[in-house]
Parts: sequence; structure tokens; C-alpha cells
Amino acid sequence: MADNPNHPDLRVTTGPIRGSRKVHVGPRNVAMREIDQEPSSGEPPLRVYDASGPYTDPAARIDIMAGLPELRRDWIRARGDVEEIAQREVRPEDNGQLSPDRTASAVARSGNRNGGVQPFPNVRKQVLRAKAGANVSQMHYARRGIITPEMEYVATRENLGRERLAEYARDGESFGAAIPDFVTPEFVRDEIARGRAIIPNNINHPESEPMAIGRNFLVKINANIGNSAVASDVAAEVDKLVWAIRWGADTVMDLSTGRNIHDTREWILRNSPVPIGTVPIYQALEKVGGVAEDLTWEIFRDTLIEQAEQGVDYFTIHAGVRLAYIPMAAKRVTGIVSRGGSIMAKWCLAHHRESFLYEKFDEITEIMKAYDIAYSLGDGLRPGSIADANDEAQFSELYTLGELTHRAWAQDVQVMIEGPGHVPMHKIKENMDKQLEVCGEAPFYTLGPLTTDIAPGYDHITSGIGAAMIGWYGTAMLCYVTPKEHLGLPDRDDVKVGVVTYKLAAHAADLAKGHPAAQVRDNALSKARFEFRWRDQFNLSLDPDTAEQYHDQTLPAEGAKTAHFCSMCGPKFCSMQISQEVRAFAAKQNQSADGFIAAQPVDAGEVEEGMAKMSRVYGEMGRELYLGAGGREHD
Amino acid sequence: MADNPNHPDLRVTTGPIRGSRKVHVGPRNVAMREIDQEPSSGEPPLRVYDASGPYTDPAARIDIMAGLPELRRDWIRARGDVEEIAQREVRPEDNGQLSPDRTASAVARSGNRNGGVQPFPNVRKQVLRAKAGANVSQMHYARRGIITPEMEYVATRENLGRERLAEYARDGESFGAAIPDFVTPEFVRDEIARGRAIIPNNINHPESEPMAIGRNFLVKINANIGNSAVASDVAAEVDKLVWAIRWGADTVMDLSTGRNIHDTREWILRNSPVPIGTVPIYQALEKVGGVAEDLTWEIFRDTLIEQAEQGVDYFTIHAGVRLAYIPMAAKRVTGIVSRGGSIMAKWCLAHHRESFLYEKFDEITEIMKAYDIAYSLGDGLRPGSIADANDEAQFSELYTLGELTHRAWAQDVQVMIEGPGHVPMHKIKENMDKQLEVCGEAPFYTLGPLTTDIAPGYDHITSGIGAAMIGWYGTAMLCYVTPKEHLGLPDRDDVKVGVVTYKLAAHAADLAKGHPAAQVRDNALSKARFEFRWRDQFNLSLDPDTAEQYHDQTLPAEGAKTAHFCSMCGPKFCSMQISQEVRAFAAKQNQSADGFIAAQPVDAGEVEEGMAKMSRVYGEMGRELYLGAGGREHD
Repeated sequence: MADNPNHPDLRVTTGPIRGSRKVHVGPRNVAMREIDQEPSSGEPPLRVYDASGPYTDPAARIDIMAGLPELRRDWIRARGDVEEIAQREVRPEDNGQLSPDRTASAVARSGNRNGGVQPFPNVRKQVLRAKAGANVSQMHYARRGIITPEMEYVATRENLGRERLAEYARDGESFGAAIPDFVTPEFVRDEIARGRAIIPNNINHPESEPMAIGRNFLVKINANIGNSAVASDVAAEVDKLVWAIRWGADTVMDLSTGRNIHDTREWILRNSPVPIGTVPIYQALEKVGGVAEDLTWEIFRDTLIEQAEQGVDYFTIHAGVRLAYIPMAAKRVTGIVSRGGSIMAKWCLAHHRESFLYEKFDEITEIMKAYDIAYSLGDGLRPGSIADANDEAQFSELYTLGELTHRAWAQDVQVMIEGPGHVPMHKIKENMDKQLEVCGEAPFYTLGPLTTDIAPGYDHITSGIGAAMIGWYGTAMLCYVTPKEHLGLPDRDDVKVGVVTYKLAAHAADLAKGHPAAQVRDNALSKARFEFRWRDQFNLSLDPDTAEQYHDQTLPAEGAKTAHFCSMCGPKFCSMQISQEVRAFAAKQNQSADGFIAAQPVDAGEVEEGMAKMSRVYGEMGRELYLGAGGREHD
Repeated sequence: MADNPNHPDLRVTTGPIRGSRKVHVGPRNVAMREIDQEPSSGEPPLRVYDASGPYTDPAARIDIMAGLPELRRDWIRARGDVEEIAQREVRPEDNGQLSPDRTASAVARSGNRNGGVQPFPNVRKQVLRAKAGANVSQMHYARRGIITPEMEYVATRENLGRERLAEYARDGESFGAAIPDFVTPEFVRDEIARGRAIIPNNINHPESEPMAIGRNFLVKINANIGNSAVASDVAAEVDKLVWAIRWGADTVMDLSTGRNIHDTREWILRNSPVPIGTVPIYQALEKVGGVAEDLTWEIFRDTLIEQAEQGVDYFTIHAGVRLAYIPMAAKRVTGIVSRGGSIMAKWCLAHHRESFLYEKFDEITEIMKAYDIAYSLGDGLRPGSIADANDEAQFSELYTLGELTHRAWAQDVQVMIEGPGHVPMHKIKENMDKQLEVCGEAPFYTLGPLTTDIAPGYDHITSGIGAAMIGWYGTAMLCYVTPKEHLGLPDRDDVKVGVVTYKLAAHAADLAKGHPAAQVRDNALSKARFEFRWRDQFNLSLDPDTAEQYHDQTLPAEGAKTAHFCSMCGPKFCSMQISQEVRAFAAKQNQSADGFIAAQPVDAGEVEEGMAKMSRVYGEMGRELYLGAGGREHD
């Protein structure tokens, strides 16, 4: 834990993940983790993707009062297309301090004018903005053929040293994705230019380590944090940020809705090495005292500028909730469950007007391109229950999101599309197929989906099932769901369980898509398991601490970690042990395992030719054959 | 908890599941649960499948020293095809007491000759067996056109009152399954006769409540319990049995391998309302001191009789591990991971002989039909890692299991087929398709499968993903995996998490298959959620205790359970609340929700006609249309 003598509440978890070393790779010094295996095993270290930033680097000095180093500062400035401007002054309403009443209650609650939160002490006076007429989006560079340092960083990061993985045959079903054997900077540029991937990185968030979201890259996951009017405070949110990325969150959304919304975001951004997303309508609503009807384009626009200058990397904008679609949701079992969607629906009905987000979309895009903020086009009409999945309201909105995608692309602004939600398994693929068709292959970013509604308390699992499947089908980023979904605010433990669940779902998707860098980790862990290298098994896993703790609950002795058995079966019944004996027995018979195989008229690579062949092989095999291969020589 | 003054260690959890009432339905008095909803909601009680037996019935007297009532006793005897015989005498080696040494160590460990375990006090002196030449299997009756009370029980149980669900349109993709709108006893008989379903219920386990395993019935789940040589005792195992069925385990396998194996099983069987499965080779191996080579057909046969007389309902028999296939496993990353499979592989190699399980298969079948024990044909060569999935060894064995299925069916003996294991998502469906083809639609019973190997500690989730998918594709029963898989022995908490995870996976599968009784529960819970009926939401869930506990961690006040908001967003930001306001707003405009919809040229039922239509609709809709429906009248 990194303590703060000046601010004892603000502490975050630091230090390496158990069994891992930080390494920096390639011309852009891309941070990765390497997991060493037992020297006696002869296995090479395994390189894994690392979203945790400097917090897991023992060589880094962490000072959350100062914020992280500005990795991209010089890259951004070297392009010569930005200017420094004075930052918009922070107003009381930015932090939800609308009236003496609300301020007073905050003081009473916390003994401090800001509800217990100091403003971030290292706020920049000057911020960056594109020069007049310039477009600083990665898509704009990409379409002009420019490979940026950000693209180079992503290329190295995605490869995970896969040049060393030549021995693995590609195996998977990618449903039309175009995953390359090796990611080059030019490949990254091309994917960004086509709109098939985004690198969300606001020029005012130079602390971020570039990462890509797209169907032809590793599947990413997002963790939501944020305080609410009911509970939570900024110290807990900064801690959750660092905790979520430690376990693998690739981006984090700050969904704060309570007081101190501006200050909380500043703390988060200055200390985040991953892209930060927000839903600006939440803060805009705070500024009008929570009365949706009082929202105006001017207040919303001002909120976008405020957050753009702070450095938010992607904005969820629910511009697809059009007036005409709202009645479609009225007959649903669960109506509108998106907060942003319901706010805009209420506004539209109250004013009998088309949504200002839709009408002002091109003006919003002008703002996005001046800071390189990516759109996350919100699915305000996503289903909130199995009953409402794939309905008219949902797909009508999706069609509009497709229209808006092309309008954003016309200005070279990066876009991803948010998706559901709650969808039974048999309706998941239709979501992916329609999204690809309507949104021109823009990255899909789904919340789960939950595959049943009957397990509150386990919705990380009901949704992990849907997430793995839709990730396989082509979704580029999976927004996590914690065990507290639908019930309460996630605490640290919930955040970790949510992140690890979604990491395993994303990895299962990568594996099924045939991503070249995926299977190597499964194989390394499986081999360690078979060879009873317990420590390696723990260290190669997504959560070494939990794996070791579970092992030790049954067999706590240190010696049990090198034992050639475990508590499940004991030494006599260990199939792994017996299986190794079988292998040794075969070898002792002066007949190598390969010899056994080679002597048989079975082509192992062609099993998939189906049962017709299997039937033939079966007829040819049998005891005689085995004797032919080994028996005759040794009986 | 039901305490036992005579045996303070032996306690089990009793009493209703929170919010549920026990009901008994139909001519065979089938036990089910009903969940009442808030009277003000006007919602009817929801009827759910109930595997928990008398333990959740406040009217039942539980005495685990005596065992459960013999529900099926009269049904079995009324058929007139069984005779009473003296039970085989229990020998020391049945309980793993091979030598003075081992007995002595047991005494030292426990201060008691049986290692801390009393024999079950209410053992039957006389047991049942088919009369000479008779076949007492449900399949035999079914093929002769006889509808048994067991089949009637199953028909009522599977319907869950679905005659009341006529309002739900069928929706799903069942991949060729033939799920009826309504289950009749004749349908059950026909499925059993065809071999597409089994009712595992040994005539010596009359305590069991009949249940069906088959692709055209609800997807079932199994929980494994059992002590090992390293840890665990009988009191904990009986407790786990009752705990596992409380949360929904449809069958339980006793995988004990340590001492007291006979006595432990007796305690379990006499107190189990669900079918009990075992792997008899485990006990046979104990009888020969753990030396696989010393196993003989005679010892194995004696073990089958011993367990048949006790009442085991299904036997896992690894008769597909043929001599010729063993070398195929030698080149795998994780060799042979099935305990039974590796034991038989070792025996085969040591003797250079074909497996006696394969050679004596028809003799085993003779035993099965004399007690109505079902085969669970074991997949001894299932993959133990992603790397080994769908390989030659696995599919060669599957082919043999298909052959054995037909050999068992030739004697009218019930069969299900065990399946993997560890399979990446893109290779799961091939498992199901091949199994259906090769095994003549005999029920498939899979262990997960795990969809990645990199998350020990979370393998209930890595496998819950695969389980939901393969359940959707047609697997009839899913064997649970707990968070401790690969790491240690599951405790009570792990058993519960494993069971609930698999219940939700099975339900997600039922939903996707379009099972008529599935969606009603999702809809009831979703509606309760939308209407802020917190108690109903908890009670309708798979685990009401955890749901309520999670809710209370953030908002513990009793009033919060009736509040029209929750801790996630607070009252101002509640999309559910806003969505209800939107609905109310629409109603206030003297324009019902249905009116809104009806006035639009959109056929809600035909959304699936695709984006071509969506495009046309989109062009026709818009602000004018909305004004036409509501705006003109009220502006």
C-alpha cells in the first residue's frame, strides 16, 4: 500500500502481482508483465498483457497527490497541432454544490466543505486543445497515413512477444474477424483508419498508456467505478481504480453521480494509466438539480468542455434515444433501464421535442475531434430483462447508432457502440451480427449480457457467460458486472471478482477466436498443473493470491506446494500421477510415446474429418493393432 | 439445523428456503416449491422445481439416524418382479480397513475403530433384487408400454404447472430437441423407451424422488461430494449432501476414496431424496490397497453388487478406455485426468490386456438390470486441458461409448454418457453433435466444460460458461465445478457457489432452448425488479439469502426494501423510476402505452424480419409520427 502522510485516506495498492516482473518492451518501452517459471522446468517466462500501470512497478515512485508521469506529453506536442489554453474555471455546480442547503448537508456529513474531498492538489492551469481547424484524433492521423507513437505502442503491446509463438498453429473460429499473425504499426493504423478499432486517449490525459479496442485485437474489459448520492467517497474510488487495473481492467468508467463529481474525476484521471470514460449527462443533470426537463444543450455542451479539458478519453452519448422510439419502450417488462437513456426520454417527452443529443450531434463531434475523445454511443434503449431482449426499441436505436457512426466518421472521430444488457443465449449472436452490419464494423462494447435474470448476487456469472459468447462473436470490449449488480454498490472485493470474471471471459473469447497469443498461457498453466508445479500454476493464473489461498485452505503445509498430489484425491488416486506413470511405463518399454502414435494408422491432425473416418479407424484399431505396435516386441 | 442428540456431529440444514412454501402436486404428490409475491402486486405464486426433499418441508420429521421415508417402496413391490435377499455382509476392506496397520492408524487418528464414523444405525438386513430372469429397469417397462408411477411423478414434476403458462409464446433454438408444450406420462415413457432420457432409481433406493435426465426435459445438475484419504469425514459429507440439494442439485455423486467408504455411502443413500451416483472402481481400488495392477474382475464385480444392494442409482463405468487408445493420451499436455480412466489405463498397460470393464460389459449390464441402475459411461480419456480438447483419444473413446450404449440398450438398461472437461468455446458444439450422432441421443452428462485453464479459483465460472453453452446445445445434465476445483476440497460455501452457478447455467440453457417453463421465472423477477418489490426480487432468485445480504450491505435499513430506488444510483438517477414516470406521463396524456404503439406503423412481432424492414420503418418514423400519435392532441 502506498500511504499518504498528508492524506491518510488516500491509499492505493502497489507492488508486483505475485510471481510477476515488470518488463518494458520495444522502441516505445511498452510495460508488460513476465511470469517466471521454476528453473528446473526449463520453461521460458510467460509474457502477459498488463493494464496495471506504474503501480505494479517497484522502480516507480507513486505519489497520488502529484499524479502519474505524462507518458504521451511529448508525442502530443511534437505533432504541432495543439495549443495551450487556460482551463475553464471550476464552478460550485461542477461538484454538485447547487445551493447553500446541499453544501450545508455535505459539511454536516463530512465536516469538510467538499464532503470529505480535497481538490486534487496538482491541477493543471493550462490545458491542450487542437489549434483552430485542426483535428487531433488518431483516426484523422490514420486516414492521412500517419503512424503515431500511440499506434506503435499498441502494436508492441498487442503482440505480447508473439514472434516467439511460431510453434502454435492457429486454431479458432473468428466469425469473419481478421486477426493477423503479427500486429504491425501499419496494421494498427489501418484498423483505426477503417474505424474497426479505436485508441481512446484525450490529449489532456497524457498519463494514459495507449491501448486499442477492436475486433482484431485482444478482447478488452472495462470496470465501472464512481460514487453515488447515497454512498461512497473519492478515496474509495481512487483505490478502486488502482485495484481494478491491477487485476486487468483495460479501461475504467467513472460513473459518479453524487457531489464532488468534478474533483473525483480529477483525482481519477491524474492517477490513471488506462483510458477513462464518463457519461457526461450524469454531471449535467447534477447541474440542474436532478430535474431532467431543465437540461439544456448549453449546460450539456459546457459539461463536455469541462470534462474534455480534464482529459476524459471517451464519452458515452445517448444520442440514439430518439423521440419516436420512446413509446416502444413503454410496453416493455422493464421499460428503460439505462440511466442516460431514461433521462433523455424524460426530457424528450416533457418538451415534445427530438433529443438535443441527436440534433446537436455534429457539434458534439466538433468538440470530440479537438481533444481526441472517442464516442461510446450509448444504448439508452438496451433491454433491462430477458423479456425485452432484441426488441423493436433496441434495434431501432441501434439503427440510429449506425447512422451516427457514419456521421462521426465523416469528421474522422473515433467511435465504439454500446450494446446490451440482458439477452438469452439464443439471441446473442443476432446482436453482434446486426451491430457489425449497421455500424460498419465499429467496435462493439457490451454490458455482459446477462443470460438469465434469476440469479441476483451471481450476475457477474450470468453475464460472464454472455460476455464470453459475445466476445467470441466479435465484441471488442466487455463492460464488467460485479456480484452486487442490481443489489448494491460494489466494494473492493466485488470489483476484483468482477474484473477477474471478465478477464477470464475475454480470454475464453480470444482463445475461441484463435488469437495467436491466447493459447500459450493456457498451455503453460496446464503443463505446470500436470507437472505438479503448484507455484507456477498459481503465478500463471489470473489471480495468484486466491489460487494459493484456496490450495492452502486444504493443505497449508509448505511441502504440499511441491507434493506430487493434492487434497482432492490424495496420492494413491492422483490421475495426473498415474498418467505420468503410464507415460513412463510406455517409455520404459523402449517404445516412446511418439513411437506408439506413429505406429498407428491414425492421423491425429484429421480427427475433425468426422465420425465417418472415426468409424473406419475404430474398425481398424483394437487389441491386435496395439500388440502390433508394442505388444509383440515386449510380451 | 436438525440436531442429533445421539450424534452431535451429524447435523443438516432444514427449514424452508426463504420466501418459499412446500407444495405437493398431482396424483403422485410431487414436491415443489411455491414463491408467494407481495399481495399488492396481484402476481400469482411462482412454482419452481424442487430437489431439496423433505428437508425444506416444515411438516416433515427429519431423523438422519433413521433415514428418509421410502416414497417408492410400494411402487417397486407392486410390480411383483423383485425378491428379498439377505444383504451381502460388510467386510473390513469395504471400509478400506485392509490391514492392522491401516486400522491402527485410523484408531489413532480418531479414537474410534471406524475413523470417527459410526455405521448407519438403520441398515436393512434384507435388500431387493429382480427375480431370476426379470428386468426391473424403467427402460424395460417403458419398452413394454408400461407407464410406471416413477414416470407419472416425473411428468408432473417437469411441468411445473406449465398448463397455466399458455400465455407465453415459445421462443428459443433447441438444435433439434423435441421439447413438448406439456409433458404427459406417455411422453416420459416414450423418451425412456427410446433411450433419450433416464430415470436413475435403484430399487434399493426407495427414498429417491424420481427425476428425469434427458434433452427434452429441464437441464439437470449434479454435485460431487465425498471424502478423500487426505481430508473430510462422513458428518461433513451428509451435511454437504443436504446442503447441495437445498440449493438445487438434482443428483449427487459420492466420490469418496478414503476409509469408511461403505459406511459413508450408507449414510448418504439413506438420507438422500435425489439419485446417488458413484464410481465403483474407486472402492475396488481401495480393496486392493491402491495398487491398480492388482484389480480383478472378481473384486470389481463384488463391489458392484455391494453398491447395488446399498441402492446406488447410477454407476460411472470407464469401459471405453480401451487398450488401443491409451498410447494416444501419452502425447497430450495433460495425459489422462480422469481418476477412473488412469486407473484402468495403468491396469491395461501393466497386463498388456484389454480392459476387463470392456470385456465384461455385458455381465455388468446383467447386474444393472437386476437393480435398475443406470450407466453413466465414463469418459476416462476426456481432455484435461484446452490443449487436449477434441483430440483423437477423446473421440476414439466416445465411439466406443456409442457401441456400449447400444449394447446396454439391447438389455433394456438405461444409459447416459459422460463428457468433457476442458474445451474452448469454438470446440464445444462438436462434442454435442458427435455425442448425439454416435450415442443415439442417449443423455449427455458433462463436467463443465472449462472454456479456459488460466483461472484456478474461478473454475466454477470458466466452466459455467461452457456448461451453459453445452446445455443449450443439448446436454441433459451438467456436473458442477466449485471454486476449489484443481486447488482443494470444496467446503460448504464452495458447494453452494458451485450449485447456484450450475443452476443458473442450466436455467440459461433452458431459456435458450425455449423451454416453456423457463421464461416465466425470469419475467416474474424482472417485473418485481421494475416495480421495486425488493423482497419478491430476493425470494424469486436462486439464492435469496445472498441477494438480501448484498442489498443490505449498502442499504441495511428495513425501509430501503420498500424504497423506490436503490444504492446504485440513488433516487434522482433511478432509470427504473424515471422509466415508470415516462410510462405514467404517457398515460396522463390520455394516450395509453398500447395506444402509442398501435398508432405506429410498426409490427412489434416482426422485428426479426431484419434490418431491411428496420430501415424502412426508420425512414417512416420520426418526430412527425410521434406528434401524430400524441402531440397534436395535447400541445
